[in-house]
Amino acid sequence: MSGKRRLGIGLIGTGFMGKAHALGFTIAARVFDLPFELDLVSVADVTQEGAEAARGRLGFRKATADWRELLTDPEIDIIDITTPNLLHKEMALAAFAHGKHVYCEKPLAPTVADCAEMVAAAEKAGVVTQVGFNYLKNPLIFLASDIIESGEIGEIRSFRGIHAEDFMADESVPWGWRLDPRSGGGALADIGSHMIACMRHLVGPIRSVLAETVIHIPQRPVARGATATRTVEVDDVTRAFVRFESGASGSFEASWIATGRKMQHDFEIYGSKGSIVFTQERLNEIRVYYAGDDIRSRGFRTIWAGPEHPPYGAFCVAPGHQIGFNELKAIEANEFLEAIAKGSKTSTDFREGYEVQKVLSATYHSARTNEWVEIG
Amino acid sequence: MSGKRRLGIGLIGTGFMGKAHALGFTIAARVFDLPFELDLVSVADVTQEGAEAARGRLGFRKATADWRELLTDPEIDIIDITTPNLLHKEMALAAFAHGKHVYCEKPLAPTVADCAEMVAAAEKAGVVTQVGFNYLKNPLIFLASDIIESGEIGEIRSFRGIHAEDFMADESVPWGWRLDPRSGGGALADIGSHMIACMRHLVGPIRSVLAETVIHIPQRPVARGATATRTVEVDDVTRAFVRFESGASGSFEASWIATGRKMQHDFEIYGSKGSIVFTQERLNEIRVYYAGDDIRSRGFRTIWAGPEHPPYGAFCVAPGHQIGFNELKAIEANEFLEAIAKGSKTSTDFREGYEVQKVLSATYHSARTNEWVEIG
Amino acid sequence: MSGKRRLGIGLIGTGFMGKAHALGFTIAARVFDLPFELDLVSVADVTQEGAEAARGRLGFRKATADWRELLTDPEIDIIDITTPNLLHKEMALAAFAHGKHVYCEKPLAPTVADCAEMVAAAEKAGVVTQVGFNYLKNPLIFLASDIIESGEIGEIRSFRGIHAEDFMADESVPWGWRLDPRSGGGALADIGSHMIACMRHLVGPIRSVLAETVIHIPQRPVARGATATRTVEVDDVTRAFVRFESGASGSFEASWIATGRKMQHDFEIYGSKGSIVFTQERLNEIRVYYAGDDIRSRGFRTIWAGPEHPPYGAFCVAPGHQIGFNELKAIEANEFLEAIAKGSKTSTDFREGYEVQKVLSATYHSARTNEWVEIG
Amino acid sequence: MSGKRRLGIGLIGTGFMGKAHALGFTIAARVFDLPFELDLVSVADVTQEGAEAARGRLGFRKATADWRELLTDPEIDIIDITTPNLLHKEMALAAFAHGKHVYCEKPLAPTVADCAEMVAAAEKAGVVTQVGFNYLKNPLIFLASDIIESGEIGEIRSFRGIHAEDFMADESVPWGWRLDPRSGGGALADIGSHMIACMRHLVGPIRSVLAETVIHIPQRPVARGATATRTVEVDDVTRAFVRFESGASGSFEASWIATGRKMQHDFEIYGSKGSIVFTQERLNEIRVYYAGDDIRSRGFRTIWAGPEHPPYGAFCVAPGHQIGFNELKAIEANEFLEAIAKGSKTSTDFREGYEVQKVLSATYHSARTNEWVEIG
Repeated sequence: MSGKRRLGIGLIGTGFMGKAHALGFTIAARVFDLPFELDLVSVADVTQEGAEAARGRLGFRKATADWRELLTDPEIDIIDITTPNLLHKEMALAAFAHGKHVYCEKPLAPTVADCAEMVAAAEKAGVVTQVGFNYLKNPLIFLASDIIESGEIGEIRSFRGIHAEDFMADESVPWGWRLDPRSGGGALADIGSHMIACMRHLVGPIRSVLAETVIHIPQRPVARGATATRTVEVDDVTRAFVRFESGASGSFEASWIATGRKMQHDFEIYGSKGSIVFTQERLNEIRVYYAGDDIRSRGFRTIWAGPEHPPYGAFCVAPGHQIGFNELKAIEANEFLEAIAKGSKTSTDFREGYEVQKVLSATYHSARTNEWVEIG
Repeated sequence: MSGKRRLGIGLIGTGFMGKAHALGFTIAARVFDLPFELDLVSVADVTQEGAEAARGRLGFRKATADWRELLTDPEIDIIDITTPNLLHKEMALAAFAHGKHVYCEKPLAPTVADCAEMVAAAEKAGVVTQVGFNYLKNPLIFLASDIIESGEIGEIRSFRGIHAEDFMADESVPWGWRLDPRSGGGALADIGSHMIACMRHLVGPIRSVLAETVIHIPQRPVARGATATRTVEVDDVTRAFVRFESGASGSFEASWIATGRKMQHDFEIYGSKGSIVFTQERLNEIRVYYAGDDIRSRGFRTIWAGPEHPPYGAFCVAPGHQIGFNELKAIEANEFLEAIAKGSKTSTDFREGYEVQKVLSATYHSARTNEWVEIG
Repeated sequence: MSGKRRLGIGLIGTGFMGKAHALGFTIAARVFDLPFELDLVSVADVTQEGAEAARGRLGFRKATADWRELLTDPEIDIIDITTPNLLHKEMALAAFAHGKHVYCEKPLAPTVADCAEMVAAAEKAGVVTQVGFNYLKNPLIFLASDIIESGEIGEIRSFRGIHAEDFMADESVPWGWRLDPRSGGGALADIGSHMIACMRHLVGPIRSVLAETVIHIPQRPVARGATATRTVEVDDVTRAFVRFESGASGSFEASWIATGRKMQHDFEIYGSKGSIVFTQERLNEIRVYYAGDDIRSRGFRTIWAGPEHPPYGAFCVAPGHQIGFNELKAIEANEFLEAIAKGSKTSTDFREGYEVQKVLSATYHSARTNEWVEIG
Repeated sequence: MSGKRRLGIGLIGTGFMGKAHALGFTIAARVFDLPFELDLVSVADVTQEGAEAARGRLGFRKATADWRELLTDPEIDIIDITTPNLLHKEMALAAFAHGKHVYCEKPLAPTVADCAEMVAAAEKAGVVTQVGFNYLKNPLIFLASDIIESGEIGEIRSFRGIHAEDFMADESVPWGWRLDPRSGGGALADIGSHMIACMRHLVGPIRSVLAETVIHIPQRPVARGATATRTVEVDDVTRAFVRFESGASGSFEASWIATGRKMQHDFEIYGSKGSIVFTQERLNEIRVYYAGDDIRSRGFRTIWAGPEHPPYGAFCVAPGHQIGFNELKAIEANEFLEAIAKGSKTSTDFREGYEVQKVLSATYHSARTNEWVEIG
């Protein structure tokens, strides 16, 4: 009806992220001048019942308990993967084999080898990929990049980042897939990967890391309320020193036991002429310091997101009204769709997911060996 | 397909608020278990071209340059009015005459008499109404109400509110509809009405006001860049003292020339046992003080919105991830749709819009007479 | 020993403010290059016992239960008055009669007539006076003045101020001298006078006010724990609209029942090209917005006090280390001593105290008459 | 006159810290009920001229260019050392040899061996010692200790600290004593030692560290404005992972090139039942989270220092009025004097300075070897 080409979406997974992706596509279709007419074709869950329930709720036309059905559905152009990361590889490789574009949650896969295989397959298939590093899709993070690249804050010298939440802080939280070592790790893999992506995005490639991991809650109930426990083998907290290829130094931490923290994805970047400080706890604000400002009225500027920070204006013509987490997903979806239309790459494609995984893997390796590990 | 009853929407106006409403409905359909299958039927704008452009962008099926066509469209159940407030009455009355439910932006109309006529018509028609006091639809404002009603912070004694932005601060901003005295006023009518609604929502009915209005920029260019100017007759700033029926006292201010402020919809509520402080600049946080907390560790608690504050959980299962302005519109839309399904009232229906208008009108009256004015 | 002239101080009152003054002089003597060798000669309290106790504690050489003894003490050059304000006039007039310089706590006296009499006597005596409007002695308030005077934030249009604390919020706080109507008022006189001084200091003379006062706790126990109560006749909260001679408009509030607030002496100043926001809750920070900054990196600058904001550097060579309330008193003392040395005036002399009292009195008058009152 | 025993002080050094100590003693004498009558006897500087200038300014009776004169001055009981840390050992040992109590700035000395020698001499002499870890003397840090020890926030699991300033961020800042490797190090020794002391104070003894140091500005002008440069051999930034004996894990960073930071002495402590967050940028506030608070109104409590947090009340009877950096020095001085009177120890005595130095030294050692280093 719009004259735009139709693009069909098949979603696998209907949990927190499944819903966020569906919402992201839906919002994107309203606020961006998308190059396609989106068609939410089909949703797959582990049971037919779960899939059916999600179908209406998330706005899809079809539902299935067999995700492989999506691969052969001629109406589907995009396979959207929001399952636990143990399952990403199999699904992505299958999607590539069928020539589908793939949108996948982070982290890409449990191992670097898995990721490499996925990148090779994606590149061979010649399709477009996107990984869900949603925190990078913030208009103010684009501003941060822009300020850094412009040289306004000089040469970047040091970085300090953290991604901390507290959803595992209570020792009664039971064992679950997040604690399964086959997933590729604990707090670092699950949420710290966001901070690795952030460092690469803002400060550039990482040369080496020196890390440690800690398990503070060594036993968890096997199920909610159970008295039987199971040994925890993955990190509650991971900390690392980082050397960037640019010469900048830094550190980051990932923790899922930071009592009281709900979304502490924070960083501080210090340059020779200024600095940038951000907390995801207030995602519509960023603080920038210019050493060159008049000394008597110099201070961190608290900048609110507004139409002058694209693509904020797509959501709201007025500054300071604030966007939310789900709208970051809409920006992520839009970037993906734009890349499909142009035949270009997203900034957080599978290759970037692979690069993040190399750092993640090196970090765990360093924690085991207590040595600086070069990123291969 | 969902087995739910279809509900058709006709939107009038395609600007800032037109888009926000369309987005609100769209998001609501994804996150809430709506009682209806929404159908975005038709959108009306002043030109066919504008309407057509909005149709695809906002997700409607039809477009028209004649808003009256929506009235007779049998597919349409809801008339959604997002035009300048001078036009609300005519449109709403016509909608009621056709038995349509009406969703209307604030303020309801330029005068109390207009509002009274609209309320009477709505009640006679037996339809459901909703006014766009979106800031009240924040999960944390629901929390504030709940805390106040629970008695946790004791008897409410005093209130201090402001709604300030700076979109008119630059004297080169030209004359426009917001400055047309027929609209019912300036900063107070345009944005201060939000704060009146807030006061009523949290502290209850207002007994009387004593106010002043100020015009700080007495001449504006007739158009952007023009040298010819036109005299400004409406308030840049309005300030008022308020007495609530409960005995609480307070004050509020509305300003659209507050340089640097983008969304300062802020209030402080002081009770005998605690207090609540909020700024819309950080809409996902609220600060609450309990005088009864242990004295040595007593302080304002900064509470982040989370699933424990309904309906935040509809948007995100994880706390602290943050919702945005458009999602407040989704909550507003949901409340409206729920009321239609139940045959009940919304908390900010036309009668509430009329009550707000009475305070607004009394405020302007007081500013002219320099006397305390009782709310009729 | 220093070759500087000795200057003797006689202090009346040994409570909160008596101690703060003694500390202010002591600190001033260490951090400023004072024009005098200070000599803390004698301290007077209502009982000899109280005076003796204070003598050693506050660093004075002599103690007396008769404040008149200070007047005739040839070693004393300055009479420092920190008693309840009902007593200020008698003490100040006596001091002037003996040719003493006078440092007096705010507010100057209960009535405008009292203040006028005190100013006349001071000017006739040709001595130097200082009133304890300590919040104005903040290096960052000097910065605010400087920014306003420089025109950097353009023409000042509007002001919004509050001075709120909660020391009277609990209804079990008993009747006391602060509640005695002979003191000249309640919250406005006691703490609101600071905000009046602030407005005058930053935005200039006030032309007229429209005000209201409220008593929220109409009965207080006659003594701590008593069941018998006494009727409260002075304001718990006062609110006023203000018109400045410059044409700027504004409002301010004084409250001593603002549960949770310990030192909310806050203001917001909006100009045509920028704005300034301050809270005494964080006295070492001020926020300044320049509309002329590059739009994409524009925001309120949070400026920490440092040596670039005199006289911060007298206390600390390093920025951001922070000064405290008592150090504001040291700056106040230093200004007083400098003026004595130069035979000049302080910026908050008795005439300024009289001007503040005129506004204060007009505010109460307006609250009684419900009319705008011109400042005489 | 007070009947108290006189205690004589001899100060060595008249710079930033010399003045802060003099001020600390002076303020302490006014606000605390000190066990002694303080006598600021004599001040030593490198030149007689400098000493004379400081004498009057800082309130001493005598001045000398030979610090050894203080040792034999029978009026002097305390030797107060505020010189660069290369000089501490010689001075302290000499003082102990003369039976003087010693108050010394941090870090205690360049090496662990030096510190050990100083501790042995102090203990042999049976005198009282104090090291200037002033940030620990904050009433709110005492509160933090108290909350941790009470068990209110459960078992402490993780710590994250930083001490960052920017006084060396500009590469034109010339070579000086802070850069002299004989001082024992750079940013870590100079300012990071405060954070080591903080960790030990709040979380307890440290078992091991893994660290890295970075030099970001490898050449500095030999003097201000010089074109000739000198190679920098000490750390601009040091980062370390920390394992506490309790089992808690953590990290800290020291940086003197953090552009825009003036006093970022910040920490976050996460326990199993709550957490504490502090920034020295706002030294009168601390944030505490109790996981056990009612979920819907749970959040970080921002606690302002008040009389309920001793010894704040010594400075001000009213909460929220705020103390400054110099007043932390007064608390430090008071603790020292109390210990002298009681014949007890201070909480930051030379032994504690030695313990801090062991961690500091291990940190540098680890940075050289890239291995975890146990604290001996």
